[in-house]
Amino acid sequence: MTWQQIAAEKKSHQLDSVPKEWLSSTLPSAETLSVIDFPPESKVLSALDLEITESSVASLLSNLASSKWSAVQVTTSFYKRAIVAQQLTNCLTEIFVDRALARAKALDEHLEKTGQVVGMLHGLPISLKDQISIQGIESTIGYVSWVGQFAEKNSVLVDILESLGAVPFVKTNVPQTLMWPETFNNIFGRTTNPYNRSLTSGGSSGGEGALVGDPLGVGSDIGGSVRIPAGFCGVYGFRPSSNRVPYAGCVNTLEGEDSVLSVLGPLSNTLDGIKIFFKAVLSKEPWLKDPMVMRKRWSDEEYKLIDHGNGEKLCFAIMWDDGIVVPHPPVRRGLEITKKALLAAGHQVIDWKSYKQAEISANVVSVDGMTSTNRVLIRAILKSAIWNAAAAEDFMAAAAPTGEPVIASMGILQEDDELLFRPSGAAISAFELWQVHKKKRDLRQEYLKHWEDTISQTGTGRPVDAIIGPMASYTAPPHGLNKTAQYTMWCNLLDYPAMIIPVSKVDQALDAKQMREEFYTAEDQENYELYNPATYENAPISIQVVGRTMEEEAVIAMSEIVDEALRASKSNI
Amino acid sequence: MTWQQIAAEKKSHQLDSVPKEWLSSTLPSAETLSVIDFPPESKVLSALDLEITESSVASLLSNLASSKWSAVQVTTSFYKRAIVAQQLTNCLTEIFVDRALARAKALDEHLEKTGQVVGMLHGLPISLKDQISIQGIESTIGYVSWVGQFAEKNSVLVDILESLGAVPFVKTNVPQTLMWPETFNNIFGRTTNPYNRSLTSGGSSGGEGALVGDPLGVGSDIGGSVRIPAGFCGVYGFRPSSNRVPYAGCVNTLEGEDSVLSVLGPLSNTLDGIKIFFKAVLSKEPWLKDPMVMRKRWSDEEYKLIDHGNGEKLCFAIMWDDGIVVPHPPVRRGLEITKKALLAAGHQVIDWKSYKQAEISANVVSVDGMTSTNRVLIRAILKSAIWNAAAAEDFMAAAAPTGEPVIASMGILQEDDELLFRPSGAAISAFELWQVHKKKRDLRQEYLKHWEDTISQTGTGRPVDAIIGPMASYTAPPHGLNKTAQYTMWCNLLDYPAMIIPVSKVDQALDAKQMREEFYTAEDQENYELYNPATYENAPISIQVVGRTMEEEAVIAMSEIVDEALRASKSNI
Repeated sequence: MTWQQIAAEKKSHQLDSVPKEWLSSTLPSAETLSVIDFPPESKVLSALDLEITESSVASLLSNLASSKWSAVQVTTSFYKRAIVAQQLTNCLTEIFVDRALARAKALDEHLEKTGQVVGMLHGLPISLKDQISIQGIESTIGYVSWVGQFAEKNSVLVDILESLGAVPFVKTNVPQTLMWPETFNNIFGRTTNPYNRSLTSGGSSGGEGALVGDPLGVGSDIGGSVRIPAGFCGVYGFRPSSNRVPYAGCVNTLEGEDSVLSVLGPLSNTLDGIKIFFKAVLSKEPWLKDPMVMRKRWSDEEYKLIDHGNGEKLCFAIMWDDGIVVPHPPVRRGLEITKKALLAAGHQVIDWKSYKQAEISANVVSVDGMTSTNRVLIRAILKSAIWNAAAAEDFMAAAAPTGEPVIASMGILQEDDELLFRPSGAAISAFELWQVHKKKRDLRQEYLKHWEDTISQTGTGRPVDAIIGPMASYTAPPHGLNKTAQYTMWCNLLDYPAMIIPVSKVDQALDAKQMREEFYTAEDQENYELYNPATYENAPISIQVVGRTMEEEAVIAMSEIVDEALRASKSNI
Repeated sequence: MTWQQIAAEKKSHQLDSVPKEWLSSTLPSAETLSVIDFPPESKVLSALDLEITESSVASLLSNLASSKWSAVQVTTSFYKRAIVAQQLTNCLTEIFVDRALARAKALDEHLEKTGQVVGMLHGLPISLKDQISIQGIESTIGYVSWVGQFAEKNSVLVDILESLGAVPFVKTNVPQTLMWPETFNNIFGRTTNPYNRSLTSGGSSGGEGALVGDPLGVGSDIGGSVRIPAGFCGVYGFRPSSNRVPYAGCVNTLEGEDSVLSVLGPLSNTLDGIKIFFKAVLSKEPWLKDPMVMRKRWSDEEYKLIDHGNGEKLCFAIMWDDGIVVPHPPVRRGLEITKKALLAAGHQVIDWKSYKQAEISANVVSVDGMTSTNRVLIRAILKSAIWNAAAAEDFMAAAAPTGEPVIASMGILQEDDELLFRPSGAAISAFELWQVHKKKRDLRQEYLKHWEDTISQTGTGRPVDAIIGPMASYTAPPHGLNKTAQYTMWCNLLDYPAMIIPVSKVDQALDAKQMREEFYTAEDQENYELYNPATYENAPISIQVVGRTMEEEAVIAMSEIVDEALRASKSNI
C-alpha cells in the first residue's frame, strides 16, 4: 500500500469507531468560525450531559464519589462532547468507546460493592496526547509509518492514572514529528481552534487544546507544546519542571535528546484540575516506576508558599516583551488586566527586565528560527543547537519506511510551497553538542543570578516571586503562521515550571492596531505587520506564570492567587 | 618555556609555600611502605596537634564552638598533618597557609566578639580536590597548560562552605584529564597510598584519599572518583545523586558531557563528617546559587527511614560479584564480615542478583575497557559510549597549548610503554549519542524494575532497602594496575547514591589466594592472576552501600546502621 492508502484506511477506521448517534446533524457550515458555544446546539448532548461536561474537576470527583453521577454517565457525557468537538475541530486520534465504558462500569461496580473509590481520580475521564501509550492502542504521532504499532504496555503515567481510578477515553492530535507549534499530519489532518477555526489550535498538544480541557487532558511540552495550545484555546495548562511527571513508556520524537527534556503536563478548564492531577500523580510515588522522576513528594508547605512569605504579599514581575518581538495589542491588554487585578488584590507588581532571551532561544532553536526570511520552523530547528543536533536523522528515519514525506510547512499549502522536507545535513558531533551544553549551563547560571538580584527591587525582602509574561507574541494566529515558540521555550531551557491562565478574548473594539514606526528587530516588524484585529477576533488571551525549577507547588498556588485576582477584578467591572 | 619547565617551576613554587618548620626531619625511607602511623613520629605534630587531628568532625565542631580550641589552632594542626602527609604520599596541589590562617583568625575574632559561630562548620578545615575553584588560586587539574589560570571567583560550594564557617586549607592531587582511577600528572607527579606506598591511592580524587579524610574533604565522582580513593585509603566517602551538591564554578574535564554527570561528594574519617557536610550544604539552599541543584531540603523524615520501615528491620542484599569479575579474597572477606555483623544486629541479608552489569558499564565506558588485552583505561574511554563521545577532542584541546603529552598510562613506565597518547578519532555524532541515551534510559528503567521486584524475597513487605557490594574487584592495587571502575560506575549510570565504609585490612594470614580453575571471563582470570596476598598487605578493605536515586538521607542513615553493626561485631570478637 502507498502511504496515502495507509493513512486513508486509518482515518476511515477512526470514523468507524464513533457511535453514529453521537454525530451531530446540525453542524455549522465550514464558514462558521467560532464553534466554542456549539455543543448545546448539537442535539447530541442532553441537559445532564451539558451539566456534567461543564463541571469543574473537583465537583465531578465529588459527584462521582457520592454516586450522584456514575462513571459510565460521566464518561459517556464527555465522550459525546469530545466527538462533537472532533466534528468541529478534528482534534482526536484514537477513539475507544467500548473499552472506556467497560472500565467506567468496572469502577461503578467497585464503588457500589465496596463503598470506596478506587483512587483520587475515580471515574474521571482523561484525554491523552497521542504519544502517551495505552496498551493495545496505536501511538502514531502522525507518522504513517507507525500505523499498526499497537502499544505492548501502558506508559507509566497511564498505569498510575488507572490506579487512581481515571478513565482514559480519547487520544488527541499532534503535528507529524511533534516538533511544530501547530497540529497537522498526513494521517489525521489539521486541528483547528474552536474559538475561531481559521486560527491554529497551536501545538504540539493541539488536539488537547481544541478539546479545551474537557475536563482534564495530558500533553507534553519541550518548547511550549502544552502551553501554546492551552493559551491559544483558552484553557489552563501547566508545564512542570523536568522529571516530576513520569514520561517513561511514551513514544516520542528525538528520542535520546536529553539536553532539553520533553515533560508531560496537564490541561484543564479549571485550575483545580491541574492541582488535583499533580497531587494525585505524585501520591503514587512515580519514582518507583520511572527512574527519571525526582523523589520529591507533593509538598503542602511549598504549596502554602513558605518560600514566598506565605503568599501574603507577593511581588510579581511582568515581562511586557522579550526585547525581540513586541506582542500584539491583545496580549498586552491581557498583561495590563492582570497587573491591575494583582494590584487591587494587594500584591506588588514590577517590570521584569528581559535577559538574554535571544541567546536562550538560540541555545534551543537557532536565532535563524526567528528571522523574517525563515518562514518554516522546521528549517529553523535544523539550523538550531540542541534540537538540531540530530533532528534530521530522527525525522527521516521515522518517515522513511512508507515513503511518507516529512512535512515542510504547517501552512495551508500554496502551489509554490515545498511538499517534501529535505534534511540540511547540518547535524553536529557530540563534542559540538557538549559546547552547546556549556553555553546552556552558563545561561541558566546567569539567569538564576539575574532573578536573585531582583531582591533589591521588590520591597518584600525576597526576589521576585513569579514572572508573568506572554505565552506568545500573538493570540492564536492563522494556520501556518505560528512560526516561533520564543515566549515559551525560554522556560524549557531554564527548566522553569510555567502555568497558562486565560484572561480574556480578542475584541476589535478594545484591541485596535497601534501605530509603531520603530522596531526591535526585523521579526518584530514582521510580527507587527501580521496583526489586524479582525483576523484574530474572539481568540483567547492568556498569560503565563513562571516560577523556579522544581517549584511546582508554589507555581500552582501563585497561579490560584492570580486567577482569583482576575476573577475578583472581573466581578468588579 | 617548555612544558617541562613550566611544570618544574610550579612544583618548586609549591615547595616554597610550605613553612620549613612543618617539614619532618624523620621521614621514613622510600622502602617503608606503610606510613599511615607515621605522623606521631614526624616531630612536627605536638600532642595537641595529634589530639585535634584524631578527633571526629562532630567533636571538632563542638570544641570549636565552645572555644576550647581556636580555629587558628585547629587549622594549624590539620595543616601540619597535611604537610606531613604530603611528604609521605605527595597528595597536595595548592598550599595557602597564610590565607587559611587569616581566615581562621577572622572566625576566632567573630566568635569572641559575638559569642556566635559563623555557621554549622565554624572553624573546620576542609580539603578540596584541585578542580574546586577558590578565588585567586589555580585549578590546573594536572594540565601544564592550565598553570597560571587563577580562579576569578569561588565555586558555589566554596562560597557555601565559607558562609558555613569552614576553612578551605589545601587542594589535593588528581590525574591529568581527571578520567583515571589513579592519581598522576605531569605537574605534581604521583600520589601514593599511605597504607602501602607501593599501591595506588586510587583516583581521580586520589589526593583526598591519601589525606585520609583529615578531617573532611571534597572530591568528585563521575565513575567512582570519590569512592575508589575512599575505599582504597580506608575512609568514608559518599557519592550523592546528581544535582544535590552544587558543582557550579568548578573547573572540569569533558565539560558539557551531561549524560552521566560528575558529582561532588565528601570524604571523612568518620561517618558523622559525611552527614554534617551534607546537612550543612543543603541548609544553605544551594538551588538558589546553582540552577542544576535540586530544590530538595534535607529531610529528617527520610533520614529516619520512613521509606524503610523506620529502620527497625532492614533487608540488605549483598552483591558478592558482578558476574564479570570475582573480587579478590580480602574483598569477599569484607562482605562476609558485613553480612555477619548485620545478621547479628537483627537485619535481614539476602543475595543480590547482578543485572546486566556489563551492559551498564558498556553504556558509560565500553566493554573493551574490561578486556584483558586492553591494558590502558584511557583507550577504553576512547572506545566507550558516553565518555568517548568526545573525550579525545577534549583532552587534546586541554593539553595542546604547551605541547604537554596526554598521559597514556598511570603505570610505572617501562621502556616500551607509550608516552604520548594519540586520539583514536572515534568520536561520535550527536545522533549516535542520542542512541546511547536511549539505551541508558532503558537500562535505568529495567534496573528499577529489577530492584522493585525483590519485594518477593525480602520478607519485609518492601523491596531490598540497600545493596551492599564491593567498590572494586581488589583492594588498592599496585600503581598502574587500577584499570577499571566497573564496581563503582554502575551507580553513576543509574544515578544511585553510594557510601564507602571501611571494614578491615588485608591480612596475609586471613586472605590466602583461593585456587580457582573456572572463570566468568578473561578479565576475571586476569584479575585472579593479579592477586597475591603479600603485594596487597595492609591495604584497606571497604564496602559500598547503595541506595535509590535522590535517597541521600536514607543511604546515610543505613550506612550508620551498617557501620554501627560492624563496630559492635568487632567489639564482640
